[in-house]
Amino acid sequence: MFLQNYWYVAAESFEVNRQPTPRIILGEPVVLYRTQDGTTVALEDRCCHQRAPLHRGKLEGDAIRCGYHGLVFDQHGVCTEIPEQERIPSSARVRAYASAEKHGWVWVWMGDSALADESLIPDFHLNIDAEWTSFQGIIEMDGASMLMVDNLLDLSHLPFLHAANIGSATDTDPDLSVEKGEGFVRVTRIARGIKSSKWQNDLGIQGNVTQEKVITFRPPCHIWIAIDTTEEAGPESGGNGQMMRQMILNSMTPVSETSCRYHWGFARDFSRGNAGVTKYMKDATDIAFNEDKEMIDAQQKIIDLDPAAPIFNLDGDEGGVAARRLMARLLAEQAGA
Amino acid sequence: MFLQNYWYVAAESFEVNRQPTPRIILGEPVVLYRTQDGTTVALEDRCCHQRAPLHRGKLEGDAIRCGYHGLVFDQHGVCTEIPEQERIPSSARVRAYASAEKHGWVWVWMGDSALADESLIPDFHLNIDAEWTSFQGIIEMDGASMLMVDNLLDLSHLPFLHAANIGSATDTDPDLSVEKGEGFVRVTRIARGIKSSKWQNDLGIQGNVTQEKVITFRPPCHIWIAIDTTEEAGPESGGNGQMMRQMILNSMTPVSETSCRYHWGFARDFSRGNAGVTKYMKDATDIAFNEDKEMIDAQQKIIDLDPAAPIFNLDGDEGGVAARRLMARLLAEQAGA
Amino acid sequence: MFLQNYWYVAAESFEVNRQPTPRIILGEPVVLYRTQDGTTVALEDRCCHQRAPLHRGKLEGDAIRCGYHGLVFDQHGVCTEIPEQERIPSSARVRAYASAEKHGWVWVWMGDSALADESLIPDFHLNIDAEWTSFQGIIEMDGASMLMVDNLLDLSHLPFLHAANIGSATDTDPDLSVEKGEGFVRVTRIARGIKSSKWQNDLGIQGNVTQEKVITFRPPCHIWIAIDTTEEAGPESGGNGQMMRQMILNSMTPVSETSCRYHWGFARDFSRGNAGVTKYMKDATDIAFNEDKEMIDAQQKIIDLDPAAPIFNLDGDEGGVAARRLMARLLAEQAGA
Repeated sequence: MFLQNYWYVAAESFEVNRQPTPRIILGEPVVLYRTQDGTTVALEDRCCHQRAPLHRGKLEGDAIRCGYHGLVFDQHGVCTEIPEQERIPSSARVRAYASAEKHGWVWVWMGDSALADESLIPDFHLNIDAEWTSFQGIIEMDGASMLMVDNLLDLSHLPFLHAANIGSATDTDPDLSVEKGEGFVRVTRIARGIKSSKWQNDLGIQGNVTQEKVITFRPPCHIWIAIDTTEEAGPESGGNGQMMRQMILNSMTPVSETSCRYHWGFARDFSRGNAGVTKYMKDATDIAFNEDKEMIDAQQKIIDLDPAAPIFNLDGDEGGVAARRLMARLLAEQAGA
Repeated sequence: MFLQNYWYVAAESFEVNRQPTPRIILGEPVVLYRTQDGTTVALEDRCCHQRAPLHRGKLEGDAIRCGYHGLVFDQHGVCTEIPEQERIPSSARVRAYASAEKHGWVWVWMGDSALADESLIPDFHLNIDAEWTSFQGIIEMDGASMLMVDNLLDLSHLPFLHAANIGSATDTDPDLSVEKGEGFVRVTRIARGIKSSKWQNDLGIQGNVTQEKVITFRPPCHIWIAIDTTEEAGPESGGNGQMMRQMILNSMTPVSETSCRYHWGFARDFSRGNAGVTKYMKDATDIAFNEDKEMIDAQQKIIDLDPAAPIFNLDGDEGGVAARRLMARLLAEQAGA
Repeated sequence: MFLQNYWYVAAESFEVNRQPTPRIILGEPVVLYRTQDGTTVALEDRCCHQRAPLHRGKLEGDAIRCGYHGLVFDQHGVCTEIPEQERIPSSARVRAYASAEKHGWVWVWMGDSALADESLIPDFHLNIDAEWTSFQGIIEMDGASMLMVDNLLDLSHLPFLHAANIGSATDTDPDLSVEKGEGFVRVTRIARGIKSSKWQNDLGIQGNVTQEKVITFRPPCHIWIAIDTTEEAGPESGGNGQMMRQMILNSMTPVSETSCRYHWGFARDFSRGNAGVTKYMKDATDIAFNEDKEMIDAQQKIIDLDPAAPIFNLDGDEGGVAARRLMARLLAEQAGA
């Protein structure tokens, strides 16, 4: 069961063009393309006639022509041509999902289009903010979206899963606080005087650091991680007091109940014009996020063996538990509505 | 659910020989071979002893010996030898399906053998008719047999799915008529003065053509398509009035509810001795039928996401709808019988 | 459904070391490793926290640290460290399976550890007996454990499935007797004056042989096959009266209801120091046991098509039938307990 009346990331902007692009989102087939003026379109990827996938068809102007029997649907999903039939019943249409392009991503509203308010699109502007340097990536995960939510809300996994790169071995005694707000869960994690990570070392930070991470979850699958890192200054620490601000942007669109498409962005406000730093960070992020994928995929396989096996929540899971409760409440409301 | 008391194509003749050949037909395991005099045999491909597949065994005369514990079954499925046991209970047997070889194909009657009347084998003699030139092919489809029935009964897909070869861009305004007969559905599709297709151009037809296609469906999965093509003559059309007669023979044997083995034949009565034409046609047919396979397989995947998603029937689906109704009625009769 | 309060082979000794080794046994995830003193450990391969597989973690002393969030579990499954949390609830633990190393294999007791009596470990000492020469192997089977039990209790398949190597073409008239004991089934199969097999020929036996095979099944999945082969002596037989004793050791640990991990050993008391004989036997065994795997895997596929298809028991199946009855009785007792 999925939350319907929400914006989901369907693609990075560059993935949507004048070739139809297929997606499975919340178990539903969706085809993405752009109209001639560049507007994104998201239609049911299932011709109303014989259920052929429209993405095997071709664009004609702002419409898409099914590659099987040639029915044409405009960007609103309305059938405008049936090759051998003049009469086009009004029921001849495919579902049009509200879509929008914002912050470098193409969004699809999976519920009632009448409720699709673009102002509700979560704020991932740091993907494209002129004052930040950023890059993005996509990972197809063979694990549920909520496993990634757990992953990101509980960064206690960094010293272990990511020990070789972004984790600090001494980052195991943070100050943790959790705010359960209206429609969000926020975990603040402050680690003081921890050993700098391999990743930080490679970027020129040698001394101990203090890191403040503010992790915000918003349903159905969006997470922001703001990271402020301050190097300790002075002879004792060996550092010189550098500061780094990063924001990790995350949206894990469910494909099925046990798989998701993970869209991420990585924005920084330091060494902004330094292409070497950008390349280093891209490579390091690919490695670290692939460690997540390998673990999540393995975890899903273990869960599939016995989906009823219990979970043991730690203090550090307060955020994850709150997120699951929020999701459960929203799903119950949706079911009741 | 499948219709049982019908002849199904199990193989092309060349596929059945003195090596046991396995098939899954209507979800049942069947092993095919020939007796010493060349008669085709179809037995349950599951030893009555421990359920080993008999096709892993060896022929001995007209019988087959299981490759596991050496039980021997004659061509009627009767166990004639149990290596370590003299007594052979009469219940020691595998099911023998009535089989026959006709028109280049090996047929199996999947229901009650007592009802297996060879005169009921559908007429695919053009596979081997001395006055026609023909070739055959086999495609394993990851889509239901009935999806291919829909495909072939509604040739409005040619200008779109097969635009690059056998489809004519202007073949979208045919005269269509449907005859719902006793045990068959027949669609007649006449397209007058349409642009010749790439395929026709390559065969020397440059002018516009008139095509009459008579498509006949007979349960459970057989379709004949008779195609008469007449090139328009005269300076206006650029053509010289050639005529071509073709017959496309089709039988889509269900493997499971969502897959089938598609046996086809292509017969013509023009350029009969021309090997170059034969080769061109073979290659072109492979390309066109693979376009069908890619679409059908993709369509089945979309259907699997939500098998209850509705279908919207067009006027051109009158034949397909009639075929589905006929099948539903026969299945209901079978269930009631 | 599986028998729980039994010892199962989880691995060959060499497979378990200071790298965690994953297994699925009876559908349950198990991780194997050795403590610093070499003792084998078998823990639930599912962290109690978020269900990550522990085998992706690392050993620390005798404990294992989860590779995801760093929880540490000692060899008894008790959580001894939660990186960000001082309080460790007593419920923070993973299941520890009783394990033992005996006869070259690592054993796991899949039921109540309190009942895990090492004296109940089946006697496979010929794997390591100083007076025998032996070698071992492992085959992942895509077929149920009980299909291998049937296979081994009914050696009438040798002249057919293994005709090219260990089977004798004339071994089809043995004296068979079956003993149904308390917790075991024993089949004695004596074949007198049969043609020697290709395998025996290659080992220098040319004459006819008499073979006595004593096959003992013990629940849940263990089988011993003691084989005494005596070559007939004298000019008539062409043989010189050689004797060979072999013991084939077999344990087929269920992975799922339709797959198993087959551990086998092959021990002999002849040509003991002859490395050429050992190599010949290893290669021949690999070939023969792969013939079993191909048949069992194919048999399981046929069974999966229609799990309710009947089985026809032959006289030679008396042992297999008794084994299945014994298993059914024990499973019923377990369900009732």
